[in-house]
Amino acid sequence: MTRLFQKHYHPAGTAPGTLRNLSLEQAALQGPATFLLARRDAGRWGEVEEIVPEAIPCASEEGPLCWLHVQGMPTAEELELLGERVGLHPLAQEDILNGGQRPKVERFEGALVVTLGIPEVDDEGSLHLFQLTLFMGGNIVASVIAEMLDPFVEVRRRLKERGGRALGEPDDLLYGLLDAAVDHAFPVLDGVGERIEELEMEILNHPDSSTLERLHGLKRELIMLRRYLWPTREVINQLLRDHDDLFTPDTRMWMRDVYDHTVQVMDLVESYRDMTASMLDVYLSSMSNRLNESMRTLTIIATIFMPLTFIVGIYGMNFSHPTSPFAMPELGWYWGYPGVWTLMAVVAIGMVVWFKRKRWF
Amino acid sequence: MTRLFQKHYHPAGTAPGTLRNLSLEQAALQGPATFLLARRDAGRWGEVEEIVPEAIPCASEEGPLCWLHVQGMPTAEELELLGERVGLHPLAQEDILNGGQRPKVERFEGALVVTLGIPEVDDEGSLHLFQLTLFMGGNIVASVIAEMLDPFVEVRRRLKERGGRALGEPDDLLYGLLDAAVDHAFPVLDGVGERIEELEMEILNHPDSSTLERLHGLKRELIMLRRYLWPTREVINQLLRDHDDLFTPDTRMWMRDVYDHTVQVMDLVESYRDMTASMLDVYLSSMSNRLNESMRTLTIIATIFMPLTFIVGIYGMNFSHPTSPFAMPELGWYWGYPGVWTLMAVVAIGMVVWFKRKRWF
Amino acid sequence: MTRLFQKHYHPAGTAPGTLRNLSLEQAALQGPATFLLARRDAGRWGEVEEIVPEAIPCASEEGPLCWLHVQGMPTAEELELLGERVGLHPLAQEDILNGGQRPKVERFEGALVVTLGIPEVDDEGSLHLFQLTLFMGGNIVASVIAEMLDPFVEVRRRLKERGGRALGEPDDLLYGLLDAAVDHAFPVLDGVGERIEELEMEILNHPDSSTLERLHGLKRELIMLRRYLWPTREVINQLLRDHDDLFTPDTRMWMRDVYDHTVQVMDLVESYRDMTASMLDVYLSSMSNRLNESMRTLTIIATIFMPLTFIVGIYGMNFSHPTSPFAMPELGWYWGYPGVWTLMAVVAIGMVVWFKRKRWF
Amino acid sequence: MTRLFQKHYHPAGTAPGTLRNLSLEQAALQGPATFLLARRDAGRWGEVEEIVPEAIPCASEEGPLCWLHVQGMPTAEELELLGERVGLHPLAQEDILNGGQRPKVERFEGALVVTLGIPEVDDEGSLHLFQLTLFMGGNIVASVIAEMLDPFVEVRRRLKERGGRALGEPDDLLYGLLDAAVDHAFPVLDGVGERIEELEMEILNHPDSSTLERLHGLKRELIMLRRYLWPTREVINQLLRDHDDLFTPDTRMWMRDVYDHTVQVMDLVESYRDMTASMLDVYLSSMSNRLNESMRTLTIIATIFMPLTFIVGIYGMNFSHPTSPFAMPELGWYWGYPGVWTLMAVVAIGMVVWFKRKRWF
Amino acid sequence: MTRLFQKHYHPAGTAPGTLRNLSLEQAALQGPATFLLARRDAGRWGEVEEIVPEAIPCASEEGPLCWLHVQGMPTAEELELLGERVGLHPLAQEDILNGGQRPKVERFEGALVVTLGIPEVDDEGSLHLFQLTLFMGGNIVASVIAEMLDPFVEVRRRLKERGGRALGEPDDLLYGLLDAAVDHAFPVLDGVGERIEELEMEILNHPDSSTLERLHGLKRELIMLRRYLWPTREVINQLLRDHDDLFTPDTRMWMRDVYDHTVQVMDLVESYRDMTASMLDVYLSSMSNRLNESMRTLTIIATIFMPLTFIVGIYGMNFSHPTSPFAMPELGWYWGYPGVWTLMAVVAIGMVVWFKRKRWF
Repeated sequence: MTRLFQKHYHPAGTAPGTLRNLSLEQAALQGPATFLLARRDAGRWGEVEEIVPEAIPCASEEGPLCWLHVQGMPTAEELELLGERVGLHPLAQEDILNGGQRPKVERFEGALVVTLGIPEVDDEGSLHLFQLTLFMGGNIVASVIAEMLDPFVEVRRRLKERGGRALGEPDDLLYGLLDAAVDHAFPVLDGVGERIEELEMEILNHPDSSTLERLHGLKRELIMLRRYLWPTREVINQLLRDHDDLFTPDTRMWMRDVYDHTVQVMDLVESYRDMTASMLDVYLSSMSNRLNESMRTLTIIATIFMPLTFIVGIYGMNFSHPTSPFAMPELGWYWGYPGVWTLMAVVAIGMVVWFKRKRWF
Repeated sequence: MTRLFQKHYHPAGTAPGTLRNLSLEQAALQGPATFLLARRDAGRWGEVEEIVPEAIPCASEEGPLCWLHVQGMPTAEELELLGERVGLHPLAQEDILNGGQRPKVERFEGALVVTLGIPEVDDEGSLHLFQLTLFMGGNIVASVIAEMLDPFVEVRRRLKERGGRALGEPDDLLYGLLDAAVDHAFPVLDGVGERIEELEMEILNHPDSSTLERLHGLKRELIMLRRYLWPTREVINQLLRDHDDLFTPDTRMWMRDVYDHTVQVMDLVESYRDMTASMLDVYLSSMSNRLNESMRTLTIIATIFMPLTFIVGIYGMNFSHPTSPFAMPELGWYWGYPGVWTLMAVVAIGMVVWFKRKRWF
Repeated sequence: MTRLFQKHYHPAGTAPGTLRNLSLEQAALQGPATFLLARRDAGRWGEVEEIVPEAIPCASEEGPLCWLHVQGMPTAEELELLGERVGLHPLAQEDILNGGQRPKVERFEGALVVTLGIPEVDDEGSLHLFQLTLFMGGNIVASVIAEMLDPFVEVRRRLKERGGRALGEPDDLLYGLLDAAVDHAFPVLDGVGERIEELEMEILNHPDSSTLERLHGLKRELIMLRRYLWPTREVINQLLRDHDDLFTPDTRMWMRDVYDHTVQVMDLVESYRDMTASMLDVYLSSMSNRLNESMRTLTIIATIFMPLTFIVGIYGMNFSHPTSPFAMPELGWYWGYPGVWTLMAVVAIGMVVWFKRKRWF
Repeated sequence: MTRLFQKHYHPAGTAPGTLRNLSLEQAALQGPATFLLARRDAGRWGEVEEIVPEAIPCASEEGPLCWLHVQGMPTAEELELLGERVGLHPLAQEDILNGGQRPKVERFEGALVVTLGIPEVDDEGSLHLFQLTLFMGGNIVASVIAEMLDPFVEVRRRLKERGGRALGEPDDLLYGLLDAAVDHAFPVLDGVGERIEELEMEILNHPDSSTLERLHGLKRELIMLRRYLWPTREVINQLLRDHDDLFTPDTRMWMRDVYDHTVQVMDLVESYRDMTASMLDVYLSSMSNRLNESMRTLTIIATIFMPLTFIVGIYGMNFSHPTSPFAMPELGWYWGYPGVWTLMAVVAIGMVVWFKRKRWF
Repeated sequence: MTRLFQKHYHPAGTAPGTLRNLSLEQAALQGPATFLLARRDAGRWGEVEEIVPEAIPCASEEGPLCWLHVQGMPTAEELELLGERVGLHPLAQEDILNGGQRPKVERFEGALVVTLGIPEVDDEGSLHLFQLTLFMGGNIVASVIAEMLDPFVEVRRRLKERGGRALGEPDDLLYGLLDAAVDHAFPVLDGVGERIEELEMEILNHPDSSTLERLHGLKRELIMLRRYLWPTREVINQLLRDHDDLFTPDTRMWMRDVYDHTVQVMDLVESYRDMTASMLDVYLSSMSNRLNESMRTLTIIATIFMPLTFIVGIYGMNFSHPTSPFAMPELGWYWGYPGVWTLMAVVAIGMVVWFKRKRWF
């Protein structure tokens, strides 16, 4: 099952900004960091190439626009080197190492750091949230995603194809990365939507005890998604509103589109939550319907057969006073046996008619 | 069943503003685009005529007020042509092609683009939301609805009848279209209201297992409606508040009426939601009532007949020690059989009295 | 049952401000309009007299303060005449004809139009909301209530009695009418409160299946009331806040009292809603309690009599190998029959003790 | 049971500010008014003495600081006299007579009137809300509580003891009275808290049908409390914020403490509401648990004894063809009777094992 | 069980700022106060040493930065001494003594007092909230925690290790203490999260009646946590926003990190609440499932065996007219006994097939 809350924190009281390397097993899970650098020279994007950490360009120097993408979990040393070169604040470095941050926008001395969560479904169908850190300072835009997931494959392809025209300014590039990151949620939500519709069919037609477990799992994922997506909306909104000097009016207009998408995503998640709540009601009612059905079957059977069994029990009694005229004379009647059958038929048919009248079946 | 969420999106990372033609089957469903143009010359509206896309007037040129209505899904090429001529921004073009947008107001370089959802019930009773895009720029007001539905039949009739007087300015015309679009929701909501009242009757009188399914379907539609209507209210409010230069004070006053209508629509949807929640409670309680009723019937039957069956069982036993005075002497009593009947009558009547006292029936 | 939503609307796309006469049957229900006029001359209110529509005074002329009260549904022609004379905007006229408006404050060129809903219980105990329109412009204050209900009987009595002093200015008169209209809700809410307390008693003591239906009806009415009362509060608040030139500081102080009353009314409705929610919980629990009670009765009866019936069944068997010592020798024992009674008594008493221990009765 | 809503209102349309004497029975319940006056001369508080209404000091005259405390319901005449002397506005007088007001702050020409509700539990454990009116104008601070409850015993004791130092200014005195009034809620809430914990114990251990009734009563009281306490918080907040000239900065600082207390009280009430909601869930679940338990007992008993009763029924049949080898030959077997016992034991043990496997007991 | 609400208050009407010593038993529970002082001389932190209350430094004097940590409950006399020396306002002293305060920020004449609640789990697994008071005025930063818990062990260790560099200014030190206090919540919430996951497993797999009790306990703790954590967020936010002169921009940046942590903590608590709500639904549904299962088992058994018992009952009847051809001739048939077995087999198999068709097992 999806782990609901994953965050590494250091003991309370530790000096903030302290970097600790991950335990080996965790590092293995997330993979070592790869540093990918794309440089824009003479109005064109060059090839994306893998570099060693020591080759990270310095933000302070004048130079062409660079996009540094760090894929996988860097060591504390690599992070510190990265921080030194591009000017990433120690608090932001700490957030990358710890993971599980709330989406947020921070500004450290002119540099902008955006932290986002990217939802992704793994091969087993569980939902994970991967933390993406975007940095913009000077001529450098950096993106760090300390996990296996690479959300920017499509962006790199675009840079290569339309190298000359696209994403030529830092704010433009940042917008492009944000857009790709936010749009990553759509197919995930689509998958969730499909699971909701499947579950809905199942609940309406033939719910079983595992249905509820899956519905609960779904709600759990929606709780997690919602928890990360609410602040995402705030993040984009904040970028839209208050950083007048960082984005050109043109980029801002395109950013509005990103904002619309985050709102759409939130709307979807809220609608899904409403849907699952309504589905739970349906599930509980169908349980209640089934109980009613069993109960009625039982009541009908019992109401018909209990009086009959009582009647046949009567004539199984052994009263036998030799001379008493009251010692079960029916037993000796010529039409006794057919008579008791008639009586039983009358009782049974009466019951059935009564149930029919009450619309029990 | 109504598809809850319909939106075409392109893969994350695709350059925004990319236009893709729809798949053939989808295009067939929505029908090819028809371009209707009405031109206001010398203070009168001319005939509405169908034109070819190439004849779309240019917004940049001075000219009479034009209303261009695009009915059905245009191809990417047609859209681009439209965009070029009237000045519709690529992002807005993309929204038209993708559909499923949240209602919103956007301004692109002086032009105003309003996106709305129009609810409509199809022949099978399912609810759909059709996206309407309104554009106002220069002397051109354009409306694009990429679906079968045409919400402006009545408006065109009015133009024809009262050609000289009505809707003579761009903002006035835009108001007229908005008004028609928003009022489109009333008969739809009326239909929903009727279905609610029918379901209510059914739930109070003779609910069955399909009732719940329909109640769930209703809630689903209300969730969908609410999701699209909330932002509609914001859209009209935004138009009312912050675009001082686009609307004359007079039009603004009439717009307040549109705003009141959207608020009324929202109120209705919220009341409907409250109603369906209350109806679910009634449904669950009536289920519970029925269970109680079955249970009581069963308990009464069992409580009366179990002791009786036990009694007749006793006298079916075969104890027969020849000389023992304890070998079921009752069987040989003169009044034995009537006695056992008396006993059983006493037990049965006692039970009935006891149930009466407890007000069980 | 109370019709939840009543509003006449014309087809979408009709020119706004279009007035249509009501259908005959509806007009019959609401009664024809009566025009009552009171004129304040020389610091005293004159008699209230019924006038013909043509005698409605003109707002534009200087003259004494007039209060025009229109009772019953005016025809479109009468409304237009009224609009012309006192300066009532066509949109406001349309709202009067259509009915079912949300409470609101509108200002049309200096004139103030307040739309309110007045709750009233009819003879059959159903709740209705009647629309009241108040108009203040120049020296004329007009009130239109297109229904049978007359909320201003008491106000007219007061004018007559204290003619010289009371309500001498337009804003003062408007305040007086608002106050009377808002206070109209208190006895209605009191009636609702009494019904809630009756239902509460019923639910705690002897709920039956009609109880729930009535609880649902109550919730339905509260949903309706709330939907109309929320905006009423906004309306009064708006009057208090932003129309500096329309009310004197003194009237404003008295208006605060009206505002307090609307808030109290809202508080009551919200508390009633909380109460009904809690009552539903109690109802459901008492259903559940009853089910438990039936179930226990059944279980106790079955648990006691099933083993006993089994025992007597045993000795009704006919095993009879002539020489076998195992052919039900008990049947031939001297103490056989008393023995089986002892066994059954032990079983029955054991069960009773076990149930007592488990506190089942 | 606590009456939920108590308010006397006059018929809609009555002139506002009309004072009506209470009915005799009600007046008897609340007791006649006593007027207590304390005067601060030469920097010391004098004795608190009972005065006749005619001796109420005038606010307009210069004079020492006076605290007038009215305990019990004054007649309309006494109230008017009070209003005249100290300058209490007719609307405020009306509020005192009518009772049941929402907490509020009003300013009438420089005088400040604060209306509060003080919760109190009577001898039978029901909760009541008593209305307290505080007035500050000129050198007079007045407090009116038209009920039996006297919340200021402790304050008077303090004045006597620390006469020289304490509460020497009007605003200071008002603060002291507010503080005493707000703190009055703590022991009441403590009592409610204890009842919640008792009910919790009862629900977890041995709920019966009266438990729910008491839980409902508790929720009812919390609804009432909440309805009065929300506006109390607003009242104190309003005093803190916008009356710059009435309170010295020092008093303001102490007032913050009162505000903190109202917030704490609200927090408690909200937590109590959450608790009762959770307790209802527990109650319903425990009902459901008991039903399950009964059901299982019944099912186990029926599943074991029904087959056994069937088996013994078989051998009670009287098939007796004299020569047929199929006429129940078992009855004549040597080991027949022990055999049938063995069969029944196998069936019974099999059932028990099956239930054990399914963890039913 | 965790006591939900713990607060000592004095009787309403007591002069505010009155200090009362705790009862002996309570004092014993919290331990006597220890006064720890650290002094920063020449840019380095000295050793932390325990001092007597009389040695508390005066805030008014110029001097090196001091950190005074009071651990355990001081007596009223010690508190007054502390107040005098460092300038702690009597209201703040009272709050320390009373405990159970809502988190808040107060400013008394330039000094800043922050009150927080620190959650901690005791050895028995119950959650407690300990009140921490932080004071900053002049060169003195004081922290008072009147309980056994010491949240600053780690901070003292850090001062010792990195004595020269760290926390050199009052605002910096205050930030460090706040950071340590807020981060204290993470391991506690982690523990809660683990208990939630355990409970979840239990509910999905084998819920019993104690499960609900524990779920209720969990909700109770979350209610308590939430009640204290909401205002904590406000507190940090207030510190961030409006005290421009107290914090340097640099410290403010680090404080943002603390704010993020409080928001994360709140998010967690809210998610936990959503989770427990969903878990309750699952619990109730699984109860309902079990009931269904029992019911079906019972219905199947009864439906199969009741008709069979009826049939065997028939042939236990003693009709025996010597010459009547209707006196149960079946009993004398050659194939009678096998015939009745065949009939019973047909009935039983028919029932089983019917249940199979209805998918009952």
